[in-house]
Amino acid sequence: MSSPLVECVPNFSEGRNSGVIEGIAAQIHGDGVWLLDVNSDADHHRTVVTFAGTPDAVEEAMLRAARVAVEMIDIDQHQGVHPRLGAVDVVPFIPLRGISLAECAARARLFGRKLAETLHIPVYLYEAAALRPDRVNLADVRRGGYELLREAIGTDPNRIPDFGPAAVGKAGATIVGARAPLIAFNAYLDTADVAVAQAIAQSIRASGGGVPYLKAMGVLVKGRAQVSMNVIDFRQTSLYTIMRALEAEAHRLGVKVLETELVGLAPQSALIAAGLEALRLPAHMATLVLERRLGATVGDYREVTFE
Amino acid sequence: MSSPLVECVPNFSEGRNSGVIEGIAAQIHGDGVWLLDVNSDADHHRTVVTFAGTPDAVEEAMLRAARVAVEMIDIDQHQGVHPRLGAVDVVPFIPLRGISLAECAARARLFGRKLAETLHIPVYLYEAAALRPDRVNLADVRRGGYELLREAIGTDPNRIPDFGPAAVGKAGATIVGARAPLIAFNAYLDTADVAVAQAIAQSIRASGGGVPYLKAMGVLVKGRAQVSMNVIDFRQTSLYTIMRALEAEAHRLGVKVLETELVGLAPQSALIAAGLEALRLPAHMATLVLERRLGATVGDYREVTFE
Repeated sequence: MSSPLVECVPNFSEGRNSGVIEGIAAQIHGDGVWLLDVNSDADHHRTVVTFAGTPDAVEEAMLRAARVAVEMIDIDQHQGVHPRLGAVDVVPFIPLRGISLAECAARARLFGRKLAETLHIPVYLYEAAALRPDRVNLADVRRGGYELLREAIGTDPNRIPDFGPAAVGKAGATIVGARAPLIAFNAYLDTADVAVAQAIAQSIRASGGGVPYLKAMGVLVKGRAQVSMNVIDFRQTSLYTIMRALEAEAHRLGVKVLETELVGLAPQSALIAAGLEALRLPAHMATLVLERRLGATVGDYREVTFE
Repeated sequence: MSSPLVECVPNFSEGRNSGVIEGIAAQIHGDGVWLLDVNSDADHHRTVVTFAGTPDAVEEAMLRAARVAVEMIDIDQHQGVHPRLGAVDVVPFIPLRGISLAECAARARLFGRKLAETLHIPVYLYEAAALRPDRVNLADVRRGGYELLREAIGTDPNRIPDFGPAAVGKAGATIVGARAPLIAFNAYLDTADVAVAQAIAQSIRASGGGVPYLKAMGVLVKGRAQVSMNVIDFRQTSLYTIMRALEAEAHRLGVKVLETELVGLAPQSALIAAGLEALRLPAHMATLVLERRLGATVGDYREVTFE
C-alpha cells in the first residue's frame, strides 16, 4: 500500500514579477512534497503552482507559500483579465492516491480555518469543502471580484466568510476547497475581437446549455481573443467533445481556432481518451496502452491513477 | 539504475484453436518475464503475444513458446488472410529500457541461431538484425508466403536462410529481428468490398508514395473491408496524421471509417500525441502530463519510456 498523495494547485494574483513568483514557489519544498509546475501568465496576471505530496507536507508547504504571497502581493494594485478575490486567490486540494475526495474536503476545511487564523484573512470554502450550497460554485464565490467584496464583506450577510475577519486587507480573501482533477484549457482564435470569444464561451459552456461540466469565458490575451475554459470532469465530458463543440461554434461565427494551451497539468487519461476518440478507437482500448500493462505487471513499475 | 527491459511480440500462425494458443501463452512465465497481452484473430488466423522482461528471461520464454508452436501448428494446413512463412512467423525484440536497439539486434542474431539449431527450422533475420539489405523489410522476406518459400528455399540462392536448414518442415520458417516499437492499427470500412480497402491501402502506404513509415494492406475481416496497417515509427508519422490520410482517401472513394482497432499494445506517447494533435495543443505540451511530472519527481513513482 502506497502512502496517500494529494495534489494542490493554488492560484496567486501575480503573473509578472518574477521575484515574487520565485519567492512563492521556493516555499514548496520539504520531505514528502514535490513541486510539479509553475505557470505564470502576464495577461491574466496570475500564477498557477502545481505540487503534490503527502497531505500533511502539502498543507505545510501551502501555508508557507500563502504567507509569502500575502506579504508580497497588494491586491489593491492588481489588474488582470482573470477574476480574483485576493493575493492567494484559490487553493484547491485534489485526491491523487490513497485518499478520498471527502477526506480531502474535511482536511481542506481544517486548512482553511488555520489559514484564516494564521494570516488573518477572510477564507471562503468551495466545491466539495463548501459549507453552504451557494458557495459550491467557484464563480459564485468570486462574483464581482475583490472590488465588490471589499464593499460588501462588512455589510452583506451573504458575504460573511467561513473563517477569519469580515474585512479585507491588501491581501484580499482566499477561497479554499477540494475537488476532482480539473483541466484548464484555453483556445486562441484568429481574431482580436473579444466579443466573438465571449459569444463562443457563452454558447458552449454548461451554464448556457452547452457542453456539460464545462466552464468558459471569453478574454483578450496577447492581443488575441481567447476562449478560456475549465473542464470540471473530463471523465464525463471529454476534451475531444469540447474541442468539437468549440470548433463547430467557431465555424458558425466565421472564425478559426488557431491553437490551444493547457494551464498547469492535465491527467494522462484525458489526453489518451482524446487520442482514442480522434482515432475512432473504442474507449476500452485504453487498456492496450503498453505502459499500463507494464505498470500492472512488472515488479518495479508503479503508476499513479485517479481513484 | 533499473535493469534492462525488452519487449517481445511474436506472431504465431494459429488464431482459432484455443488449446494451442493457451499452450503457447503458458510458456511465457518465469523470473523476470511478464505476459502483457494475447491477441488472437480468427480471420487473420493468427495470434500476437506481447511480453516483456529482462533479455535472458525473455529469450528463454520465447524459445519455450516456439518449441510448443512448432510441435502443435502444421503450416501446411494453415489458411488465413495474413501473409506468413511459418508456425512461429515473426519474432521481434524491442528495446524498452536500459538497452539499445543495436544491442537488441546483436542478441536477436544469437537468438535466431539458437532457435534454428534447437528446433531445426530455417531462420531469417530482419530489420535491425538483418545481415543482408534485401532482408531488412519484413514484407520482402515474407513475399509469396510459405507456399512460395517451400518451392524456392532449396533452389533459389536468395532464399537460403541465415541459420538452419535450407528446407522446410510442417512448421515452415521463422523471421527473427529487432526493431523500434511498432503499432498495429486496423480500420474497418462501411463496405464489404475488399478492393476498396486495397485501393486505400495502396495510396496511403509509404511504398505507394503515401504516408512515410506506414505499411498497409486491404483485407476482408468479419465480412467487412479492413485497412490493416503497421506504423513503423510513430514518432516520425503520428497516428493522427495516418488517420487523416485514411479518412481523406476513404472520403474520396465514397466510403467511411466505421471504427478502428489496435492489435497488441501501443505506447502511451503515441496515443497522447494523437490527443494533443486532435486538440490543437502544441507537441511540447506532452510535458504537462501530470503523471509524467509525478514520475520525474515523486520518490516512489517510476515510468518506462522508450529510450
